[in-house]
Amino acid sequence: MNVTVHGRTRHFRTVTFDAGRNAVRLIEQRLLPHEFRIVATRDFRQTARAITDMVVRGAGAIGATAAYGLAQGAHAFRGRRLADFQRHMGVVSRALKAARPTAVDPANAIHYVSQFMRRGRTIAERQALALAAAEEFASADVRHCEAIGRHGARLIRSGMNVLTHCNAGWLAFVDIGSATAPLYAAQAQGRKFHVYCDETRPRSQGATLTAWELAQQGISHQVIADNAAGHLMQRGKIDLVIVGSDRTLGRTGEVANKIGTYTKAVLAGRHGIPFYVAIPLSTIDWELKSGRDIPIEERHEEEVLGAWGVPAGAGRARAGRRAYVRVANPTSGALNPGFDVTPAELITGIITPVGILKPSELWARRRELGWAG
Amino acid sequence: MNVTVHGRTRHFRTVTFDAGRNAVRLIEQRLLPHEFRIVATRDFRQTARAITDMVVRGAGAIGATAAYGLAQGAHAFRGRRLADFQRHMGVVSRALKAARPTAVDPANAIHYVSQFMRRGRTIAERQALALAAAEEFASADVRHCEAIGRHGARLIRSGMNVLTHCNAGWLAFVDIGSATAPLYAAQAQGRKFHVYCDETRPRSQGATLTAWELAQQGISHQVIADNAAGHLMQRGKIDLVIVGSDRTLGRTGEVANKIGTYTKAVLAGRHGIPFYVAIPLSTIDWELKSGRDIPIEERHEEEVLGAWGVPAGAGRARAGRRAYVRVANPTSGALNPGFDVTPAELITGIITPVGILKPSELWARRRELGWAG
Repeated sequence: MNVTVHGRTRHFRTVTFDAGRNAVRLIEQRLLPHEFRIVATRDFRQTARAITDMVVRGAGAIGATAAYGLAQGAHAFRGRRLADFQRHMGVVSRALKAARPTAVDPANAIHYVSQFMRRGRTIAERQALALAAAEEFASADVRHCEAIGRHGARLIRSGMNVLTHCNAGWLAFVDIGSATAPLYAAQAQGRKFHVYCDETRPRSQGATLTAWELAQQGISHQVIADNAAGHLMQRGKIDLVIVGSDRTLGRTGEVANKIGTYTKAVLAGRHGIPFYVAIPLSTIDWELKSGRDIPIEERHEEEVLGAWGVPAGAGRARAGRRAYVRVANPTSGALNPGFDVTPAELITGIITPVGILKPSELWARRRELGWAG
Repeated sequence: MNVTVHGRTRHFRTVTFDAGRNAVRLIEQRLLPHEFRIVATRDFRQTARAITDMVVRGAGAIGATAAYGLAQGAHAFRGRRLADFQRHMGVVSRALKAARPTAVDPANAIHYVSQFMRRGRTIAERQALALAAAEEFASADVRHCEAIGRHGARLIRSGMNVLTHCNAGWLAFVDIGSATAPLYAAQAQGRKFHVYCDETRPRSQGATLTAWELAQQGISHQVIADNAAGHLMQRGKIDLVIVGSDRTLGRTGEVANKIGTYTKAVLAGRHGIPFYVAIPLSTIDWELKSGRDIPIEERHEEEVLGAWGVPAGAGRARAGRRAYVRVANPTSGALNPGFDVTPAELITGIITPVGILKPSELWARRRELGWAG
């Protein structure tokens, strides 16, 4: 999407590949929203570390980063024997897979690029195919998000107030995003609307990343405390809710997403407000039979007990000065579940690259949706 | 309640009067939860400023502070003529009333003490009566909270998990608190239970004040993000919700309270979890006919865009070092409604000093509940 830096507006993707320098170029997301900077990794180990250290985060974005990391590793090979090249690629693959061991997208990306690469008969052919496959993997992510935007845009009319939770924006993908895609597409069609960004405690991705994205695109928006949405719905000030998803069960239509999503779905249900989930195909889980079987990650209590921000008076905020402050009583602990599960009955529709579906339609249309079973 | 400072446990009230020094003694609440300190105001103007500056906050606590401030002002009078005394008392009343112009409790307290004082025929008698009335006003607050505890304690069984929102604890009253009173009473009866404290963004009174209170009393508790309660309810981990109230409509049973209360009531309703509101009589509004007529205060957006806390590494935290950090995107604004309205249908019961009532019973029992109409 477009980003304005020092008055100049340019288009950026979250992840790109600089073939001339054999470098993966990433938006340094840990500095956002206080500073926009592009960093380049010089080798596949730096790329893996960028995934581990959350320079880049979000399902689609880390998948593409791993894909490019594999191409980067392939091009750095200086030997002559194909067997040595394949051994080297095994090392590269393991390093990138281990960067975020529980994430499914890097593993899928590595599998895709590796399979494609094997069609080459020489090292040079395989190096070229690795890069072509990585570019295709990233492009597919963009195409899926574009399709989500195309389908979702018709939900948004001028004058609407839209609520979103957490960040399922372009920063979490290669471009455009999932939950944000309908917003950007509607804006491109000239519609004017307002977005309430749930702060999304404890990590505040709504207040930081989503608010930054919307500000960059010039979309009218306000941050609200997670506590405020119920009141706004009660007073008729929210017309539509769109969120993303970390995992959607293909068999039941249940949606696991950032903690607090379920609460918004319950409130929307009470007030008759449409509640939509935008998903890329890669997050559909075709195996699990019940949302009760989804393990809920318990995260570190420090997230709940404090906050990260830039101290007042730090002037033109530089993220280097971002600090953690302890908010809560120093002798109290916290419980910090990372996400929750929204049942299908509370979901008006699921915005997929192939169209807007009822949760109950996912299984029937599983072949279109990439089911490999 | 008891507070342990440097290993010594003593009983404190939020507000007391030191007749020997003619001083109002207050817990300096702006330093909590990081530091516990008692401050003394030397004259009624300092007392008024302590209310304005939120050294003391909470309906019951600022009411008692104003009552004592009036007694303090009376005792400082050095003239001989009753007319001069009454003129002086007018100045004192106006200063204390203006300290927090929209709060109803200081106004009620000043009215009560002033009426009582007029029974005296001499300056000395009026000075004595002012102090007696102030002490009675503070004692009535404590008795009401004790009665709320007595009635509410029977809702709490050993092994329960109780959710509370914001701080309607003893720090907001002279002692014991409203929403916390059933917890303290159940603990005194030997019951063991666990409390989840909603963080209560944007001002985080749950994470700071309620968590501090419960830690001081040795009640098992954890802070949770406001986003987490829905998930915990869904997984059967919350058995009871108790909150306080800023304003309860005597005609309809609707409850205005800290933003986010309505959301918790909706969630509790969906999961069949009892939702109780503990209220002192002073917060009942007998005039308004609908919750839609309650004006919702829009507070400053800085509250939502950042957080107050003690920087990590500040060692043994001193509140003097408490700092504001900007969390949100620097170019985004916020919307910050301060409270919301919960309809009677979502309220299982209202815990009052005269017993636990259905919201619909308030009007029928208005005489017992202090209706002056």
